[in-house]
Amino acid sequence: MENVSISDVRRLFEPQSVAIIGASQDTGKIGYKVVENIIVGGYKGKIYPVNPRGGEVLGLKIFKSVEDIEDAIDVACITVPAKLTEAAVESCGRKGIRYALIITSGFSEIGNLDLEKRIVAMAMRYGVRIMGPNMFGMYSAQVSLNATFGPSEINPGGVAIITQSGALGLAMIGKTFVENIGLSTICSIGNKCDLDEADLMEYLIDHEMTKVIFMYIEGVKQGEKFIAALKRATRKKPVIVVKSGRSKRGAQAAASHTGSLAGADNVFESIMRQCGALRAEDVKDAFEWCKYISNNPIPSGDETVIVTNGGGIGVMATDACEKYGVTLYDNAATLKKVFAAVTPEFGSLKNPVDITGGAKAGDYDQALRVAAECPDINSAIALYCETAVFDIEELPQMVRTMYDFYKDKGKNISFSLFGGAKIRECIEDLGKDKIPVYGNVYDAVSPLGAVYAYRRYLQESSHDVMDIDLDVSAINAIVDNAKKQDRYFLLTNEAQQIMKIAGVPIPQTIIVTSLAEAVKAAETIGYPVVMKVVSKDIIHKSDAGGVAINLLDEKEVIDAYEAIYYNCKTHVPGAYIEGIEVAEMVKPGTEIIAGAKIDPSFGAIVMAGLGGIYVEVMKDVAFRAYPLERRELFSMIQEIRSYKLLLGVRGEKAKDIERLVDTVCKVGAIVHKCKGISDIEINPVVVYEEGAGAKAVDTRILLSKD
Amino acid sequence: MENVSISDVRRLFEPQSVAIIGASQDTGKIGYKVVENIIVGGYKGKIYPVNPRGGEVLGLKIFKSVEDIEDAIDVACITVPAKLTEAAVESCGRKGIRYALIITSGFSEIGNLDLEKRIVAMAMRYGVRIMGPNMFGMYSAQVSLNATFGPSEINPGGVAIITQSGALGLAMIGKTFVENIGLSTICSIGNKCDLDEADLMEYLIDHEMTKVIFMYIEGVKQGEKFIAALKRATRKKPVIVVKSGRSKRGAQAAASHTGSLAGADNVFESIMRQCGALRAEDVKDAFEWCKYISNNPIPSGDETVIVTNGGGIGVMATDACEKYGVTLYDNAATLKKVFAAVTPEFGSLKNPVDITGGAKAGDYDQALRVAAECPDINSAIALYCETAVFDIEELPQMVRTMYDFYKDKGKNISFSLFGGAKIRECIEDLGKDKIPVYGNVYDAVSPLGAVYAYRRYLQESSHDVMDIDLDVSAINAIVDNAKKQDRYFLLTNEAQQIMKIAGVPIPQTIIVTSLAEAVKAAETIGYPVVMKVVSKDIIHKSDAGGVAINLLDEKEVIDAYEAIYYNCKTHVPGAYIEGIEVAEMVKPGTEIIAGAKIDPSFGAIVMAGLGGIYVEVMKDVAFRAYPLERRELFSMIQEIRSYKLLLGVRGEKAKDIERLVDTVCKVGAIVHKCKGISDIEINPVVVYEEGAGAKAVDTRILLSKD
Repeated sequence: MENVSISDVRRLFEPQSVAIIGASQDTGKIGYKVVENIIVGGYKGKIYPVNPRGGEVLGLKIFKSVEDIEDAIDVACITVPAKLTEAAVESCGRKGIRYALIITSGFSEIGNLDLEKRIVAMAMRYGVRIMGPNMFGMYSAQVSLNATFGPSEINPGGVAIITQSGALGLAMIGKTFVENIGLSTICSIGNKCDLDEADLMEYLIDHEMTKVIFMYIEGVKQGEKFIAALKRATRKKPVIVVKSGRSKRGAQAAASHTGSLAGADNVFESIMRQCGALRAEDVKDAFEWCKYISNNPIPSGDETVIVTNGGGIGVMATDACEKYGVTLYDNAATLKKVFAAVTPEFGSLKNPVDITGGAKAGDYDQALRVAAECPDINSAIALYCETAVFDIEELPQMVRTMYDFYKDKGKNISFSLFGGAKIRECIEDLGKDKIPVYGNVYDAVSPLGAVYAYRRYLQESSHDVMDIDLDVSAINAIVDNAKKQDRYFLLTNEAQQIMKIAGVPIPQTIIVTSLAEAVKAAETIGYPVVMKVVSKDIIHKSDAGGVAINLLDEKEVIDAYEAIYYNCKTHVPGAYIEGIEVAEMVKPGTEIIAGAKIDPSFGAIVMAGLGGIYVEVMKDVAFRAYPLERRELFSMIQEIRSYKLLLGVRGEKAKDIERLVDTVCKVGAIVHKCKGISDIEINPVVVYEEGAGAKAVDTRILLSKD
Repeated sequence: MENVSISDVRRLFEPQSVAIIGASQDTGKIGYKVVENIIVGGYKGKIYPVNPRGGEVLGLKIFKSVEDIEDAIDVACITVPAKLTEAAVESCGRKGIRYALIITSGFSEIGNLDLEKRIVAMAMRYGVRIMGPNMFGMYSAQVSLNATFGPSEINPGGVAIITQSGALGLAMIGKTFVENIGLSTICSIGNKCDLDEADLMEYLIDHEMTKVIFMYIEGVKQGEKFIAALKRATRKKPVIVVKSGRSKRGAQAAASHTGSLAGADNVFESIMRQCGALRAEDVKDAFEWCKYISNNPIPSGDETVIVTNGGGIGVMATDACEKYGVTLYDNAATLKKVFAAVTPEFGSLKNPVDITGGAKAGDYDQALRVAAECPDINSAIALYCETAVFDIEELPQMVRTMYDFYKDKGKNISFSLFGGAKIRECIEDLGKDKIPVYGNVYDAVSPLGAVYAYRRYLQESSHDVMDIDLDVSAINAIVDNAKKQDRYFLLTNEAQQIMKIAGVPIPQTIIVTSLAEAVKAAETIGYPVVMKVVSKDIIHKSDAGGVAINLLDEKEVIDAYEAIYYNCKTHVPGAYIEGIEVAEMVKPGTEIIAGAKIDPSFGAIVMAGLGGIYVEVMKDVAFRAYPLERRELFSMIQEIRSYKLLLGVRGEKAKDIERLVDTVCKVGAIVHKCKGISDIEINPVVVYEEGAGAKAVDTRILLSKD
């Protein structure tokens, strides 16, 4: 369906009136709970319960039909049984209601696809947009609307949650409340039969109250739309994503649970990186990141300092910084200058700065203050191991003071406090005021890592969406010809032809049928050359003696030509030999795999990785999806673990990454633009030194079957 | 120093009397706090405060010297200033005290190496064994001895903690108390000038009360001793290890903090796997594992089932199971049979078993009960997302009942409860009774993963320590000869000679000085052969035309012999040509790197990994250390990410892993037994198909400089 417009989707999140179709007087029913939550939540608009039985609920008149209501209705929550939803949607349509939240379950999630399709068709007829079905409703802080059947207590705040799982989402409402996380919205998108994450993001991108967006995803349906919205969102605010089904087994479970195809996790992981979304492993991490990011500034630089009273935890925090990508400040002279006066003799002036087990509140105060005042230092991580010399009563005040001090300077600080009951109390109290205090070193570093990952993305992004010039019709002609023959793969020469059309360099190849032609071809190509028999009857060319490599001159070409004919005729009597292929002998270089294919979630995606025999074993590949920017292909290639091979190892020069990127661009454009092609894999692309280009040696192209 | 004996080290942990040398009446002093903790802790033995000033402390007479005490003293805690410690140790020696805990700091940790060495020498003279210096003391539940200056409150229990960090260790006392973790002992080993982790483990291995050992390590000093003790320990009980300095930057920080060399983390990681120790990333995980393992049985089989009321968390738990190595039960027929009666129609009978959002306490009870009763299922993970239909008051009882039910059957269960304030309360209350209930899916799976990792180790272990027959004196002769020439590397032919002595197959090589010899050598070796010039004057042999490969017959050998002479003489006029090497042309196979070297922490270690150019880029190597079992070399090779190459990819046959293991055995034995050799690297070892062997193509040997 068409995308929503931003001005329009605001009516969904900020309705002036809501109807609850299926409102109930029975306190055990969802139709009662939703009405109750809307009232208890202090909704600022008008509330219209609807039920054909009429009556009253919680002091409100129940209308027999939405069409009986005189006012305009912005949003309808539908809680009627599944079989009545179609009629409910129709009445919404007739009433001119723009948005229907179908809370009711019993649709595609249990295999009831037909009913869901009928509802969508009905909605389309009237221009009603649907959220759900099979969802728990929606909370929107902007108008104090808690149109869910979940808990009544919700803290308003800066975190927007979109969840594909209803059960988990409902439980998140309680969890966020107890974890002191304020919400700008929480909504479940259920079966996503119409509106999806991308549509909801349109509102959240410019919604001022929303400081961070958290999405719990099980599977992506309309990938390209999703990516476009996600990229727009991450330009404005951090987006945190949890996607379950990371593992192979988990992906199977997700597919059977949601009915949506869960693509390969490494594809998803790569694409989240492309879009600048922060992927958390689980909801716990995501919540910590949300809390931190919605309450702290994005630092203006990368340099972080650790201040500790114990060497051991200092080392652990250093490990955690490396794990989470937090840069430790390393200017020895400045560190010495800044910290010499506030560090005891046997402490350490290196980073981690060790103010020793003798440190008291005042010592932390001093050390953290000078760090904040140093213009070169942007963030601090303060670690405390409980000691007898530190008066624990002074701890909360020190933490509060330092937190405010850093915030005032637009800098970041997080604390890890390790110890007994009083420390725990301290962490809980400070946490209530949203001060980033943790009971463990890794927990204190992880959210800072998320902030820095986002900062890096913002700095890198340039947003120059590519458009590759491509002779689509010439390629389609080759594809169509193959399909006419009921083939869903292309022959080598067809694939080579497409590479040529797209301008991807391939080894020069000439098919000859005479000795004179062979010699001429070899001279055209330039020595050394390779020769191979061309015959549909000879499958194993090497075994038949049909291949000769490294032919250095005319004499060797003549010898090889005769030998190949003789060998093949002897080895496969009666074989029809169409000719002999004379090809450039490809010089060795770095072997990369590159390609593009149609992903079930994201549509056209491109790929590059370590090539040759290692592809299957090392699975060292990275991906990007459309809309695609050229710089994203460089970051994709940097993501490959064996990227160093392209930078040159053992004294070799750097490889021609620009030309490799060109190749990926072009095969990507083919798959993106030529609908008949589902998969292109070049293995290897041989990449030479900078300026010397890259060559697609072996290209395999598959066609789509629909 | 000599290792302690088990019977002897028991006196350290279960002393009948302790002296506190440096006991103080000043309540702010460590010498006071230790006496107080010993008294408050209810120590079962006799307490003798010692201070030359005499007097009384907390109702106990202060002796002016340990030698004034009439009773025998088992353990002395020394808290005097650093400069007085040598005299204190001497008085311990004269009194015949076996163990001195030197709590005092100011020794090697701040560069004061001499004083520490003097103390060790003094202790050795009298046979006193030292723990520390620079430590917080020791707690031993067996005799209720809290000889630390940390918190007074400690829960006795099944977890033994050995920590290299004093600051972190002290804070752990408070943390374990608040986390409901019971301790059998906690001690810091400080600078490890005498006793180390290995010595303390000797006691803990057979200590019945100790169910699990947790070590916090910053650096290992006597690796081989440590490994031997660790292996003995893991045969009896789980050992959990946290080693900080995982990252490169962290390792530097650790080295500067502890003064001990932190070896490469991938070596440590590999060796922990070898020893069956469970490595946690941080103290939080380690504590969770300790708690779980000390309170739950080791299941008798691997099969685990997830029971959930939400699809989303079920998928996340599946991901977590894959991450932590927990096997999910997969027999569809049995799952159906077992769960059909207890799962609603729209639930899932696959694993994760989804009893749907409508599940109440009774439904969980039923589903978990049938799972426990199924003989094929060994463990369960129960997931609950807070819902309105589940009466939360019934939750704690359901969890308790199920926990007991599983425990009775020798099976494992852990719970993840996700939701608001009441859920949090529930988790806290149940946690006090050591029931494994967590607020997050990954947290609930991780400890089960640790249990299963340990179980797998116990099943695999066989303990057949290898002894390789090796002509050490022949190898030493070659090494000594090189050292006489002030060389710390061996020449190619020396390295080849050592490979031959050790019985490592290398390509056959004959050096010849005449054409006739060359032809004879080629016939002896068998065609095809390679020929290379042998001359100290010609460094770049290929450039000089001094190499010919793939020589197929006598004619080609003759041509090559003459060409090499001619080329070299022309290219490097005046070069002295010692001869020409005729060598077997090595057939292609899987290229592996294998080797052995002296590690600063662990002594002799062996290594194998992905060979060729990928060594530096992919860093895909695994390690093992001595004492070494042959089966451990197989597990080392399985640890390599590219292990699949050895199993055969793209239809290839499996490779000769047995012969590869032989090669590693032998180079390991050389480094382990021949003290002059510090490093052997074979890159590549070419490994052929099963039965076809492996060949060490290029061997580089370095000599030790001390």
